Amino acid sequence: MKIFIKKKKNVKLSEVLRLLKIDNYNDNKSEVVNDIKDIMSAKNNEITFFNNLKYKDQIKNSKASFCIIKKNFLKLLPNTCTPLVVDNVLVSLSKITNLFYPNSINDDYDSDLLHPNGSKNFSNVHFGNNVLLGKNVKIGNECFIGHNSIIESNVIIGNQCSIGSNVIIRKSVIGNNVNVLDGAIIGKKGFGFFPNQNSNIRYPHIGLVIIGNDVEIGCNCVIDRGSLSNTIIDNNTYLDNQVHVAHNVRIGKNCIIAGQVGFAGSSKIGDNVMIGGQAGISGHLDVGDNVKIGGGSGVIDDIPDNDKVMGYPAKNIKKFIKINKWAID
Amino acid sequence: MKIFIKKKKNVKLSEVLRLLKIDNYNDNKSEVVNDIKDIMSAKNNEITFFNNLKYKDQIKNSKASFCIIKKNFLKLLPNTCTPLVVDNVLVSLSKITNLFYPNSINDDYDSDLLHPNGSKNFSNVHFGNNVLLGKNVKIGNECFIGHNSIIESNVIIGNQCSIGSNVIIRKSVIGNNVNVLDGAIIGKKGFGFFPNQNSNIRYPHIGLVIIGNDVEIGCNCVIDRGSLSNTIIDNNTYLDNQVHVAHNVRIGKNCIIAGQVGFAGSSKIGDNVMIGGQAGISGHLDVGDNVKIGGGSGVIDDIPDNDKVMGYPAKNIKKFIKINKWAID
Amino acid sequence: MKIFIKKKKNVKLSEVLRLLKIDNYNDNKSEVVNDIKDIMSAKNNEITFFNNLKYKDQIKNSKASFCIIKKNFLKLLPNTCTPLVVDNVLVSLSKITNLFYPNSINDDYDSDLLHPNGSKNFSNVHFGNNVLLGKNVKIGNECFIGHNSIIESNVIIGNQCSIGSNVIIRKSVIGNNVNVLDGAIIGKKGFGFFPNQNSNIRYPHIGLVIIGNDVEIGCNCVIDRGSLSNTIIDNNTYLDNQVHVAHNVRIGKNCIIAGQVGFAGSSKIGDNVMIGGQAGISGHLDVGDNVKIGGGSGVIDDIPDNDKVMGYPAKNIKKFIKINKWAID
Repeated sequence: MKIFIKKKKNVKLSEVLRLLKIDNYNDNKSEVVNDIKDIMSAKNNEITFFNNLKYKDQIKNSKASFCIIKKNFLKLLPNTCTPLVVDNVLVSLSKITNLFYPNSINDDYDSDLLHPNGSKNFSNVHFGNNVLLGKNVKIGNECFIGHNSIIESNVIIGNQCSIGSNVIIRKSVIGNNVNVLDGAIIGKKGFGFFPNQNSNIRYPHIGLVIIGNDVEIGCNCVIDRGSLSNTIIDNNTYLDNQVHVAHNVRIGKNCIIAGQVGFAGSSKIGDNVMIGGQAGISGHLDVGDNVKIGGGSGVIDDIPDNDKVMGYPAKNIKKFIKINKWAID
Repeated sequence: MKIFIKKKKNVKLSEVLRLLKIDNYNDNKSEVVNDIKDIMSAKNNEITFFNNLKYKDQIKNSKASFCIIKKNFLKLLPNTCTPLVVDNVLVSLSKITNLFYPNSINDDYDSDLLHPNGSKNFSNVHFGNNVLLGKNVKIGNECFIGHNSIIESNVIIGNQCSIGSNVIIRKSVIGNNVNVLDGAIIGKKGFGFFPNQNSNIRYPHIGLVIIGNDVEIGCNCVIDRGSLSNTIIDNNTYLDNQVHVAHNVRIGKNCIIAGQVGFAGSSKIGDNVMIGGQAGISGHLDVGDNVKIGGGSGVIDDIPDNDKVMGYPAKNIKKFIKINKWAID
Repeated sequence: MKIFIKKKKNVKLSEVLRLLKIDNYNDNKSEVVNDIKDIMSAKNNEITFFNNLKYKDQIKNSKASFCIIKKNFLKLLPNTCTPLVVDNVLVSLSKITNLFYPNSINDDYDSDLLHPNGSKNFSNVHFGNNVLLGKNVKIGNECFIGHNSIIESNVIIGNQCSIGSNVIIRKSVIGNNVNVLDGAIIGKKGFGFFPNQNSNIRYPHIGLVIIGNDVEIGCNCVIDRGSLSNTIIDNNTYLDNQVHVAHNVRIGKNCIIAGQVGFAGSSKIGDNVMIGGQAGISGHLDVGDNVKIGGGSGVIDDIPDNDKVMGYPAKNIKKFIKINKWAID
């Protein structure tokens, strides 16, 4: 799935060490490393990173050969994984991602777009006026692509999808029977950078947006692509208008997300979750299956399966009503 | 006003009964039924539905000949109205709406659009570049339609209106002296469906968006059309940017709605109401005249005329200040 | 910088007095007045206005020759400034602004746009398809302007900027190395008007949007231009998606503004401020330097430098946690 961004081949460990300014490495530096991935995805000869204790159970089972890590977390690393010790993990991660995926920081408009008029590749697709398509775009049967919409290079769209007008889709893979409504923007780079006086340092976003089957994305929604891993919206999940989904968020199956809800980066939402309008979900949280979140709530902690929460910070609804009743009486 | 969606004629009661799987009906099944409407609008030979005790006073005075209803609400029905008893009122409503209005679930882009260049019908309208107009669109005198805007078939726009650029309007009737600012999307189907594992069931949206005179709709606002009845924004009401108005919402005259406010479905807002930025109004509520709602409030109950509320859940402002003062001290 | 809106020259004081219905003025009425500006900007022979006690220290030092003011604030005015006493300051301000800047209420689309194809003025700019540019637009070197984007007349864009697709920019000056992401709308008139039964009175917006260097504006953000003064976003400040910035807001350097944050009109945000997702900032507030505002907070009071706040109304985070802990226990 990394077809969207060209990867540099034959990167040697010595290049990695030089970029990270690690000079006390004594093993074979001419070894080739293949890629940089998140903890769960990285395999043999690949690099991962560790920067947040929330993932300490995952790092123990990582299959990565190398891990960018701070000194004080070293003991969490399994023996199979060679540490690359640095002071600032995220800046280091950014440098190495950029090494493997040069040009991945840039998010300029795709300049290779063409009008699809008469192309034989899309004989089963209905195009509105002024649609622009990139190279290698794949669109299934019986799809509609509305006026002025832009589908950038390499995007894959399944069968029976209805894409509205003024929609922009880049670096995304979309399943069957998906509706993307007018003005939605899917797949732009996330809000990821290292704060720096005078000139922040943007970091690369090599992840995708993966949308399952039977999904609906409302008008003017914005769904950012992942930085290292992917942003995922699973089967039969519906998003109302003006919802914001930040990078690396994973939303499960059969969820119902009302208007103007916002998800900060890297949170994971289970299956069958219902979220009321204008609720906000902080970053790096784990929301269980069958959870109900009241409209306007602010979720700042993990929520276990089957819980029903409300308020800011969101708490179990019985507790919320009790406190609120007290306050009103 | 049902010009927007073609209605099937000569629907017989027997067809309705068959779809609803009602087989114990003993009166004349060959009778013709004319339409399906909400409780207040339905007349003789028309069908309505009842599913929410909030409307129990209205159903008593309904002029509908038939009502889709659950067994346990039967005693609320007036004698003049024949019950059509079902287990799931909303799914049944969806089926019957679809019977009268086939294709009304579909919300693909309008494929019949043309550039208005040189059309004699619009000699008093100023068009930007790349404007697309559908069939039978009516636009009054001295109007401006900005670049890349799309006005789909049958839309009616009054005199002295200024429509911005990148605007999409469908299935709507707009009065005189209305400003619709850039990027606003008016008239797409609402977020209405029946949750269903693996594949939700969308329901038809045959209502319109009706906008009065002297209204302003801000940038990137989204206003959904009604499902069965209409979404209404009455005279001299102003909406700031990024406001979300769900299906069937009715907003009165002279209201001021600040940025990022969200209205869930079917709520009714009175006249002269002021709502601060980012406030949220839950569904099926009745907000009175001259109400003031503080910015960021979450309204989850009806509000009487002339009240001033704030907080989440929104409460009378004196109570809010008292509680908050206490909490701070 | 008032190149964007034509100013009427040689306005005599007698015209001003006539519009404001001031007939007891005994000095030289044939004097020429040059402009109308805010308290801090107005100089000799220029008019300002005073309507809010928050600015009482500023009015004492104003260099304006005239001030539109209510009777009961007269004693706050310095001797060097001649009062123009009126009942309704804002309506009067609107009338005089309109006198100096006729047509400044109107915000119709710019009808003078052209495709930039082949223009020699932009040999160092990369244009997507269907870009529209107004008259006298200036764009620096190595810039990208995405598909369907509209840059209206007189807009100035610096070097190395990346403007996305479907972007609309009017009445704005943008620095170097700025990213404006897809669907953002910059420079439309603010949500400013005088409420009036049956037909609100819009007021002129003669201010600009001024964006510094190294700024990022997220997808579908809306940034309104100032009414009398300018809306400003200073160097190295990043806005995530769907942020709303109302007229006259000034945001300092190195700020990080997460998704869906909303700023009401005329608030001033210091340098190095971090604001979490969905937070709202009320109007006419002063938020200090190095302030951190938690996601979902509602800020309704000034915040001193270095404070960390959370909640609604936003309070110091230690207090917030204490209250909330109590409520949960």
